[in-house]
Amino acid sequence: MAYPSALKNLVEVLCRFPGIGPKTAQRLAFYLLGLPREDVVDIARAMVGAKDNLVFCPDCGALSETGGCSYCSDAERDRSLICVVQEARDVIVLERTGQFRGLYHVLHGALSPLDGIGPEELKLDRLDKRVAEEGIKEVIIATNPNVEGDATAGYLARMLKKYTVRITRIAFGLPVGGDIEYADDLTLSRALDGRREM
Amino acid sequence: MAYPSALKNLVEVLCRFPGIGPKTAQRLAFYLLGLPREDVVDIARAMVGAKDNLVFCPDCGALSETGGCSYCSDAERDRSLICVVQEARDVIVLERTGQFRGLYHVLHGALSPLDGIGPEELKLDRLDKRVAEEGIKEVIIATNPNVEGDATAGYLARMLKKYTVRITRIAFGLPVGGDIEYADDLTLSRALDGRREM
Repeated sequence: MAYPSALKNLVEVLCRFPGIGPKTAQRLAFYLLGLPREDVVDIARAMVGAKDNLVFCPDCGALSETGGCSYCSDAERDRSLICVVQEARDVIVLERTGQFRGLYHVLHGALSPLDGIGPEELKLDRLDKRVAEEGIKEVIIATNPNVEGDATAGYLARMLKKYTVRITRIAFGLPVGGDIEYADDLTLSRALDGRREM
Repeated sequence: MAYPSALKNLVEVLCRFPGIGPKTAQRLAFYLLGLPREDVVDIARAMVGAKDNLVFCPDCGALSETGGCSYCSDAERDRSLICVVQEARDVIVLERTGQFRGLYHVLHGALSPLDGIGPEELKLDRLDKRVAEEGIKEVIIATNPNVEGDATAGYLARMLKKYTVRITRIAFGLPVGGDIEYADDLTLSRALDGRREM
């Protein structure tokens, strides 16, 4: 009897979280057990509450409160501009910059034939429809700078070529505050490719 | 509006966990939002359930199911032997070795004057009483190998000296599978101190 069953159960569910192994799960479990009951109930409620109050917008796929997407329904946004991202969390990261005032389109994934994720899984026809019908002038592709993100960007560019829409991809290069000495070869060669007139 | 309020709330409660910062909390929150509702409810239930079904034993301080400590009530254990540990989770780690078949005493902390933790906070009188009244022959001190653990071990040894009880502390030395080359100076000098005849 190393683990009482309620603890075993708790450690098991915490292990389901990405990046949390058995040791971290055990540490978190003991932390929870050391909290007053109200605090544990608070955490449990916040989880179920978030699940109940947040949905992915049926139009753009971004995370929104039930009852209306705050991005799609924002009259101040530039509706001729769509930024395509892989995950709903990417929207929040982009919003934090305060730079982008267009609409979003979340793919909820990236093309990855090895994982069985093709164009159908990403529901790309919905993006196609938006570009066809909603007067979009530019699609900014902000998929991740890796194999899957590149493949997805390439596919999107080909898919949208039939429309008279500008298709761009966010820049690759040195991260600000980075050091050339520590940049990897690929980043550096992409930064050279993307050089701009000063 | 970067964060819908239910998400903000969830990220905030997840940030309370030790070792989980805002970025990890956000990753976990999005993971939760991607799960089916039943799974989120499962996790929430496991947390509250663990809190409701597990208590710290009033005698030994170890984690036990409500209704009886499985260590204190186990007739097969050697009741003349007490192993003193800092935290309830340490009991589980020791149990996993399958080596120790005595009783436990969990201090729920270690002496740390800077943090305002003195002998009263650790309820050391309870340990004193157990050693005085329960026919204990040996107290094995398994506090952590650091300043607080050392101070606590020293204090316990002085406190229990008045009884005819053997007081031992678990060995310091090289971790098994370790490499002398990478051992720090203090561990190595403790390992030399603790050398044994072959």
